[in-house]
Amino acid sequence: MSKQSSRDSAAQSEAPQPLALRRVGIDTYRENVAYLHRDCAIYRAEGFQALSKVEVRANGRCILASVNVVDDSAIVGCQQLGLSEDAFVQLGVAEGCGVTVSQAEPPRSIPALHRKIAGERLAQDDFAGIVEDIASHRYSKIELTAFVVACNQGELDREEVFYLTDAMSRVGRRLDWHEYPVVDKHCVGGIPGNRTSMLVVPIVAAHNMLCPKTSSRAITSPAGTADTMEVLASVEMPFERLMEIVRRHRGCLAWGGTSDLSPADDVLISVERPLSIDSPGQMVASILSKKISAGSSHLLLDIPIGPTAKVRSMPDAQRLRRLFEFVARRMGLVIDVVITDGRQPVGNGIGPVLEARDVLRVLENHPLAPTDLREKALRLAGRMLEFDAGVRGGEGYGLARDILDSGRALQKMRAIIDAQGAKHFDPDKPCLSPLSFEVKASQAGMVVGIDNQQLARIARLAGAPKASGAGVDLLVKLGDRVSSGDPLYRVYAAYPTEQAFASEACDRNSGYFIGAAEQLTRVSVEF
Amino acid sequence: MSKQSSRDSAAQSEAPQPLALRRVGIDTYRENVAYLHRDCAIYRAEGFQALSKVEVRANGRCILASVNVVDDSAIVGCQQLGLSEDAFVQLGVAEGCGVTVSQAEPPRSIPALHRKIAGERLAQDDFAGIVEDIASHRYSKIELTAFVVACNQGELDREEVFYLTDAMSRVGRRLDWHEYPVVDKHCVGGIPGNRTSMLVVPIVAAHNMLCPKTSSRAITSPAGTADTMEVLASVEMPFERLMEIVRRHRGCLAWGGTSDLSPADDVLISVERPLSIDSPGQMVASILSKKISAGSSHLLLDIPIGPTAKVRSMPDAQRLRRLFEFVARRMGLVIDVVITDGRQPVGNGIGPVLEARDVLRVLENHPLAPTDLREKALRLAGRMLEFDAGVRGGEGYGLARDILDSGRALQKMRAIIDAQGAKHFDPDKPCLSPLSFEVKASQAGMVVGIDNQQLARIARLAGAPKASGAGVDLLVKLGDRVSSGDPLYRVYAAYPTEQAFASEACDRNSGYFIGAAEQLTRVSVEF
Repeated sequence: MSKQSSRDSAAQSEAPQPLALRRVGIDTYRENVAYLHRDCAIYRAEGFQALSKVEVRANGRCILASVNVVDDSAIVGCQQLGLSEDAFVQLGVAEGCGVTVSQAEPPRSIPALHRKIAGERLAQDDFAGIVEDIASHRYSKIELTAFVVACNQGELDREEVFYLTDAMSRVGRRLDWHEYPVVDKHCVGGIPGNRTSMLVVPIVAAHNMLCPKTSSRAITSPAGTADTMEVLASVEMPFERLMEIVRRHRGCLAWGGTSDLSPADDVLISVERPLSIDSPGQMVASILSKKISAGSSHLLLDIPIGPTAKVRSMPDAQRLRRLFEFVARRMGLVIDVVITDGRQPVGNGIGPVLEARDVLRVLENHPLAPTDLREKALRLAGRMLEFDAGVRGGEGYGLARDILDSGRALQKMRAIIDAQGAKHFDPDKPCLSPLSFEVKASQAGMVVGIDNQQLARIARLAGAPKASGAGVDLLVKLGDRVSSGDPLYRVYAAYPTEQAFASEACDRNSGYFIGAAEQLTRVSVEF
Repeated sequence: MSKQSSRDSAAQSEAPQPLALRRVGIDTYRENVAYLHRDCAIYRAEGFQALSKVEVRANGRCILASVNVVDDSAIVGCQQLGLSEDAFVQLGVAEGCGVTVSQAEPPRSIPALHRKIAGERLAQDDFAGIVEDIASHRYSKIELTAFVVACNQGELDREEVFYLTDAMSRVGRRLDWHEYPVVDKHCVGGIPGNRTSMLVVPIVAAHNMLCPKTSSRAITSPAGTADTMEVLASVEMPFERLMEIVRRHRGCLAWGGTSDLSPADDVLISVERPLSIDSPGQMVASILSKKISAGSSHLLLDIPIGPTAKVRSMPDAQRLRRLFEFVARRMGLVIDVVITDGRQPVGNGIGPVLEARDVLRVLENHPLAPTDLREKALRLAGRMLEFDAGVRGGEGYGLARDILDSGRALQKMRAIIDAQGAKHFDPDKPCLSPLSFEVKASQAGMVVGIDNQQLARIARLAGAPKASGAGVDLLVKLGDRVSSGDPLYRVYAAYPTEQAFASEACDRNSGYFIGAAEQLTRVSVEF
């Protein structure tokens, strides 16, 4: 059977006319959008539809974008092509430059995507192709969502999780520190106030272990490590400067989101977050690919469990631990998983300034330092110190405590803060947001439950992390006894609207459960 | 355990200031987008993120939209809220009106969506809630995609397909014609040139059966029935006018997409199309919910099979038939499924004008009328006529042929065309696009295969359906013998760019396979 044919064509071959590039000041949140006027000759001729995927080319550069059709010449004219903010930056040419636009070929990995949607098991090559297309922004939001949903829950077996992790870690930059071990810690998340990294990094670095901790800003939480650290020091600096700080001080607390480590992860997160999808396979691939790209050889992983934590039961935590261990082993990463108490927020403060206060109080051995934050940080740091072949099993905790109590951790933290660019901060007079109110116990009894999610929500509504001084300061915690009318926590807000939102949320659900001692939620964890 | 708490608040309760509504001339393709300036007080205060879902209220009306953050005051100012075209129309208030905007509560059906994503079976109520939220535009594109993917392929059992169909048919308008039977036909699609509806409707209507055929414009094909009919008559008119034409003439060929019949279907299609997802469950729910909303009691369903048709094998076709039959029975709809030959395009023309020419030639019993189109239409119409209790099994075909041969079908078609608003069209001098080229056989032999998808693609690249005179005119079909250099088909294009695109596509793959007689693709179908 032959497929060839000759053609008797009268077609004039006509090069498409370039359009003038216009930056359209619209933030479309990681989806590249190209704005074309409805009367634009190219739009008419090429039969683009709304949401068609097009290739935009200029100066030898090329990006993909979805078309939005525009009827208003004030946004783009008929001779122009508009690009949304992110897309404009990605293309990286100046406004007014000539750009050409053409129908994009569908990403090459789409057949593999369809097989995954149909429930098939994919091969290593399939994941490599999909991840490459995702990292190159060739997938639309719809295709991304389809991939995320098709890989959700039980849909990836553990071999596939390894393939996905491996593919993600191979795209983008990969650091090599030329030493061993290179350690990192990570928490699967969901616990407000859990700023152990800001204690663990200085302790471990003070022991001279290299710890290029990757930290992030909050996305759905009231503060990420980067947000809290920003109260104390600058966290945005060129990538090379960060590398230098890590080499010199053995650690830093300022890793950027723009460092091109596992870029596919950033793209996937843009649909996982709004969908609140956080399946074990995707969590493992996301965390491990970032750590491996950052050059880590050892990882301490914290899985908090509790009724309002991300992981709710010990069997779930153990299943997740085994998956992390399987994939880490295949990737050649040493992993130590600790399952911790996630029944309530860690420390007292929730929100950047309040959390920075707690962290500094622990480092300064201040009498008001929250003991739960101190204890958790010491235990995690202790386990990390045991990654050092010279530290014997069981000795890490004592070593970490010595480093903290002696002030060496504080000294290391000060060095890191200075290197990043110190900001003025007095933990005894933290700069909190001006509007505040207390939420009080409506009955006497014991605090038997604290809802992590509701307190995170209240802190966010109050303005955290955008307003660094906003948030929630917990005055009592699990097991404390209160009388009716005793304050449970204080909310700080920057603006009246935010205060009103937070206060309505407190009215609906304070997040605190007061009851009898035998009602206290308990979890059985390693420490 | 008690959840209450009292609050000691200094919060000033402050009503949010309204913003002035602005229509932003951007077509975001069925996703409502609200444009907020980055410096807008409400954006800052409420902590919206890009893609946050917000409720926009004005004059007692409310719509949901996703936020795009704008940095350019020419698009929206700090005191304005912009809405994309669709969203503006949905809200239905004038520019400049005061609108308020607030964080949207997540749609109530999201927990059910998450259960479906996790692979659970949903109950009837769950589908009702999801479909209602979808029809009310409460789902983001990401949530819609998640639903579509989670319901893909084997993920819906047939009881769930019934629940989904039932839920979809209950939302939106539902017509009642106050007579019985009310008949309709539908093809699952994928075959270019397959314009049988324009023959079946006049034949059936000439027999005085009520046939409120729902037709659509092309979305991914080179022409839909509405596009082809538009060559002969106006197809856009108020809904009440359409109803009147159907009542008077027993049929019409102009059903609008804006008639609010199964509106959830239109929303779902907006993600199914770009993803090319067309799973059996979704196809059944989509087609049957539309037909039931349109008031049909009987449906003739055409499932073409062939190597490049949507359904590729007889077992697949039979499985699909059983699913249609199960759900139709539960919905109280009488269905007759015919499996037809889908190996090649039907008729000669592909594209609105070319297809209209073919249809009119059949109606006029013209010597150049394509016999395959005539035969298929007669067989389908015959089966539909047998829905009439007065027509005996096996008599339908002869009856349909009599109606066609006697000119009664043409007469009925003329009446429908006049009622809708006739346009000048001469089938012997069709107004084809000016640029054309022929694709020729590169070897001698028999036409043993024609790729439906490639020919549809070529016709689209040539400009169909936007340019009504563009498309492909097939000169030989399956089983015809050709010599090397014989023309296979002629392509008509309106613009040089389109001609160039189409001609490149023909060079890559003409869509024709020339070989030996024994290589001819065969399918075994009912007729």
